[in-house]
Amino acid sequence: MTAYEDLERLFERRALLSEARGLLYWDRATMMPAGAAEGRAEQIAALAVLTQDMLTGPEVADLLDAAEAAAEAGGLDDWRAANLREMRRDWRYATAVPSSLVAAIERAGSASEMVWREARPGNDFARQRPYLEEVLRLTREIADCRAQAFGCAPYDALLDGYEAGLTAATVDAVFDDLADFLPGFLDDVLARQAAAGPPLRPAGPFEIAAQRRLATDLMTALGFDFAHGRLDVSAHPFTGGVPDDVRITTRYTTDDFTSALMGVLHETGHALYERGLPAAWRRQPVGAAGGMLLHESQSLLIEMQVCRGGAFLAHALPLMAAAFDGDGPAWDRGNILRLYQRVERGLVRVDADEVTYPLHIILRYRLERALLSGDLPVADLPGAWNDGMADLLGVRPPDDRDGCLQDIHWMDGAIGYFPTYTLGAMAAAQLYAAAVAQSPDIVTGIAA
Amino acid sequence: MTAYEDLERLFERRALLSEARGLLYWDRATMMPAGAAEGRAEQIAALAVLTQDMLTGPEVADLLDAAEAAAEAGGLDDWRAANLREMRRDWRYATAVPSSLVAAIERAGSASEMVWREARPGNDFARQRPYLEEVLRLTREIADCRAQAFGCAPYDALLDGYEAGLTAATVDAVFDDLADFLPGFLDDVLARQAAAGPPLRPAGPFEIAAQRRLATDLMTALGFDFAHGRLDVSAHPFTGGVPDDVRITTRYTTDDFTSALMGVLHETGHALYERGLPAAWRRQPVGAAGGMLLHESQSLLIEMQVCRGGAFLAHALPLMAAAFDGDGPAWDRGNILRLYQRVERGLVRVDADEVTYPLHIILRYRLERALLSGDLPVADLPGAWNDGMADLLGVRPPDDRDGCLQDIHWMDGAIGYFPTYTLGAMAAAQLYAAAVAQSPDIVTGIAA
Repeated sequence: MTAYEDLERLFERRALLSEARGLLYWDRATMMPAGAAEGRAEQIAALAVLTQDMLTGPEVADLLDAAEAAAEAGGLDDWRAANLREMRRDWRYATAVPSSLVAAIERAGSASEMVWREARPGNDFARQRPYLEEVLRLTREIADCRAQAFGCAPYDALLDGYEAGLTAATVDAVFDDLADFLPGFLDDVLARQAAAGPPLRPAGPFEIAAQRRLATDLMTALGFDFAHGRLDVSAHPFTGGVPDDVRITTRYTTDDFTSALMGVLHETGHALYERGLPAAWRRQPVGAAGGMLLHESQSLLIEMQVCRGGAFLAHALPLMAAAFDGDGPAWDRGNILRLYQRVERGLVRVDADEVTYPLHIILRYRLERALLSGDLPVADLPGAWNDGMADLLGVRPPDDRDGCLQDIHWMDGAIGYFPTYTLGAMAAAQLYAAAVAQSPDIVTGIAA
Repeated sequence: MTAYEDLERLFERRALLSEARGLLYWDRATMMPAGAAEGRAEQIAALAVLTQDMLTGPEVADLLDAAEAAAEAGGLDDWRAANLREMRRDWRYATAVPSSLVAAIERAGSASEMVWREARPGNDFARQRPYLEEVLRLTREIADCRAQAFGCAPYDALLDGYEAGLTAATVDAVFDDLADFLPGFLDDVLARQAAAGPPLRPAGPFEIAAQRRLATDLMTALGFDFAHGRLDVSAHPFTGGVPDDVRITTRYTTDDFTSALMGVLHETGHALYERGLPAAWRRQPVGAAGGMLLHESQSLLIEMQVCRGGAFLAHALPLMAAAFDGDGPAWDRGNILRLYQRVERGLVRVDADEVTYPLHIILRYRLERALLSGDLPVADLPGAWNDGMADLLGVRPPDDRDGCLQDIHWMDGAIGYFPTYTLGAMAAAQLYAAAVAQSPDIVTGIAA
């Protein structure tokens, strides 16, 4: 076997361990009883360390060198050459950070997430604080290790982990523009909305079983294959699993069906992307998702560009009305469309609209940089959050539940992730506009 | 660190991988969509190979030798010395079989189990046959490898894998006795039952949600802690998970609630045993379950000795009647007791009573030995099964669904497992009799 072929075998074994680890995460979020959290963290840490250690031996470095020499000599086709570049990237990540730190962040992130599940509904930032501090301390160590190895700034090293090549300089350029433009634009939108009067809200309660049936019907209509995936419930919606078993989650409330439904359609976008990854390169680095920006562009393509539009509603609204015995003016298509495209100075990111969503992200971007650098102590986060909301969105959260405790990301150590959401939203809008410009019958296709 | 301490570290890491693998099995049986089966088999095989390879290097043999020398010099206390003996046992197993065979049986067992999920309800032995043949071929190879390494017969090597030290000679002595005694005894029991007339069966349908609530109430009464476990549904009931997260399954039918309920109480016995394993030795070989005979003695202690008895019914019957609005003579305690202790020439092992159950096991024991040796070709299994049922139990299955396709064990490669069921039943009866003889107030305690 050639060095490259040896590497393919190695990365396949490694991917299988990562897949197993992914299932342990999914189960933790959806199925695991609370008393199992410590044991689960140990299982995940052990797999994470093994996955890391598979790349850090000297023989892997030798194989990479040999394969790269072969590639330079023209011995690899384009896919294999690209795969080799992604292998080198994985190797750089694995060798940058000691495996003790990998195990430590898994344990701390798990403990922090388990506390968050109670601290958020209990509005108890004081309880979360020491866990978040520990996660942040370890994330900072990881960022510093990577920064040293990659020769970049610590925050850039975290950004790069979610989207290869992304830097704070790039994010700043885009976000500064948005931060200039959006507040005035938001005023304009709100003024125009006010002139039209508020849309009516369909009255609940909306039975959860009916919400679930509707969600699975629409998932199926969008192409989600339940022979290769599941829909479950978790405290924070996410997409997990593997391309032949994509697992999405949502959370239901009986007061409203839109939040859960649009969440499901969003995750369905992630799921379709995972399911559509090139099967011939399954378990090779080049066959994995192309970063979180691209991933988010696919979820928002489905949710924001397709499912909140009139064409999709032509298909979906009769199903919605049937699911909840909806009747009357609140269920009128024009009204629902206005409701789904409504812009509001809201508190909660996952419920935000296209206009305000980037402002939620800009807030998190600024705060996480300050948290990472140490300029913002964790103790000051609630105040800084609320001030930022007042400044950017013009609303001040009445509590931490819908303030700085609302998202799972930082609790788990995911710092540098949020910017990909807004960059992904922009990519989604561009992709959809380009697609419709090229094939206008896409819109009638969606309605049919 | 001493050699023994190094080994404890190694076996802890190994146990964490086994725990992860256990979750992958549990998920496959309860949650996984069918389209993920091949990928899951690869994940499980990769973990199985890694778990095996952790013990097969020369440094592990050296550590074991050094630790054993220290133990002989009196350097280890009783628990550690026992742990070391179990480590050596695990090492013998790991080094006996090439890891390629370990991966192959995982793949073949998975494919066979997935087919069985459809072949059983479809009564389609022809479809199952090639899968069972392949599993059997690989099981034979494994048995041969172990037989050579351990210096014993191939079937004994499989028995030993489920219960250390168990041999066909031991099983034969017990089973020959039972096979002599039981047919005549069964006639006597059936004659006495006939004189008393048949018990009444509570009339259904029994709503599955109500069955589940009743089951979880009784699990809780028996000491099952839902902060450390779950109850789910699978095609074949089992107990999985780890001591701090014990996962039991059942299968419901609306015609009858007793089968699912008694299945749940049976698995609860397994669960209580797992949960009660010594926490100080978690993830060390000496802290693992003491073989499947002992495990089954605990499930049958709960199900057969406790839950099918009058004292438990004093507690449970009012809950059962409330769950299903049960009223009238069928819900009389004496009637239910006769129903739960009723002896019948039935077709299905998991629904069998104390008297006929060993006959189901003796059939399987004889057939699996013949399958393993090759004396019985898989193609002849349905006929041999039906003849054996007629011979031992006096009934002939009308189809393979409730004949040779009824159990998952062989489909997955579990040959040598069945004997522990009847030996466990005998141990359960002995344990309960000894406990009650020593503390007669156990019975009133159960009723209260």
